[in-house]
Amino acid sequence: MTPAELRLTHQFAFLLEIDRLKSVLRASELVDGSRYENSAEHSWHICLFALVLAEHAESAVQIDRVIKMLLLHDIVEIDAGDNPIHLAVDAAKVAAKEAAAADRIFGLLPDDIRADFQDIWSEFEAAQSADAIYAKAIDRLAPVIQIMKSGGGSWTKYNVTEAQIASRVGSKVARGAPKLWAYTEKLVAAYFKENSQDKSAQEDVAL
Amino acid sequence: MTPAELRLTHQFAFLLEIDRLKSVLRASELVDGSRYENSAEHSWHICLFALVLAEHAESAVQIDRVIKMLLLHDIVEIDAGDNPIHLAVDAAKVAAKEAAAADRIFGLLPDDIRADFQDIWSEFEAAQSADAIYAKAIDRLAPVIQIMKSGGGSWTKYNVTEAQIASRVGSKVARGAPKLWAYTEKLVAAYFKENSQDKSAQEDVAL
Repeated sequence: MTPAELRLTHQFAFLLEIDRLKSVLRASELVDGSRYENSAEHSWHICLFALVLAEHAESAVQIDRVIKMLLLHDIVEIDAGDNPIHLAVDAAKVAAKEAAAADRIFGLLPDDIRADFQDIWSEFEAAQSADAIYAKAIDRLAPVIQIMKSGGGSWTKYNVTEAQIASRVGSKVARGAPKLWAYTEKLVAAYFKENSQDKSAQEDVAL
Repeated sequence: MTPAELRLTHQFAFLLEIDRLKSVLRASELVDGSRYENSAEHSWHICLFALVLAEHAESAVQIDRVIKMLLLHDIVEIDAGDNPIHLAVDAAKVAAKEAAAADRIFGLLPDDIRADFQDIWSEFEAAQSADAIYAKAIDRLAPVIQIMKSGGGSWTKYNVTEAQIASRVGSKVARGAPKLWAYTEKLVAAYFKENSQDKSAQEDVAL
């Protein structure tokens, strides 16, 4: 095998391995409620969220780097699984598992690409650069928009309150895209108002 | 509603509408054979193919434009459906359906973004620019690698021959990334050799 062929072997091995992200299920459902969303299609979707909404980023971002981050950001879940933000987890344990996953999966690649992908994934995780802060904002925003449209989904399942959305999601979206959160916050308020009225109405009927 | 809010309403409407791409099924299966692949997760996957294999593009490409093309390229399938390349279709009819789909779905966006997305999608479809030729090559290459790993899938179902792979897929991959096809062609030859030997062996047993 020539060195060029060996390099291709490594590239293809990585590209085949990440097919498994299509089988990692998230807590959120498709907008039509037909099934749970997987992390691969979610990654595609938030790349488009990032692209379409780029003008609302708080700081100037390099949208191409943001998209690269979002394409890569969930690959570690192949080994480490998805952790819904509304469930309590041991953050240090999750971080260690994800770091090991990054070593193994990005390690399938030729060294130069491995180093590049590790760097951009670490930058995303650290959430300090303008690109990473915007990428994280989009990663948190997308499920909110989807869940409201699908009629509650994981919010209903985990009994999530409006205050919890504000603290767990809103603060992170606002950090990267405050205008986006200002608008979304109104939608969330309207959602919870309507939803609690529905519940009261149902309770009235039940009485 | 302020003009800024109206703009966000259009952006969110598009982002929610494209969730439906997660329910458009392709002829190809996941590598583990567990189910058919959908066009949203396929779009994510080929963005990574394009990124990891960019060095093998025949002409200098702007990888960021290629990725934008690949993120957008299948959205028309929400209305027009997926057309497996191994099935005979009326190309003019498909093109008309896809153009109408692009009008409707990209038409949900504010005008400036709509025009940008329409342009890049049309460039992909035309397959004349270096970026589009490489993007098309990757879109055709990825299923070949996946299908061989998953053990045949749609090739078995549609009785696809090695010569058909060469003419329908190989020519397009070779146009955008000849070194990639030179390598993949060897893998395809080995696959068909092994596969037909298996078949002969099974026939021997059956006699």
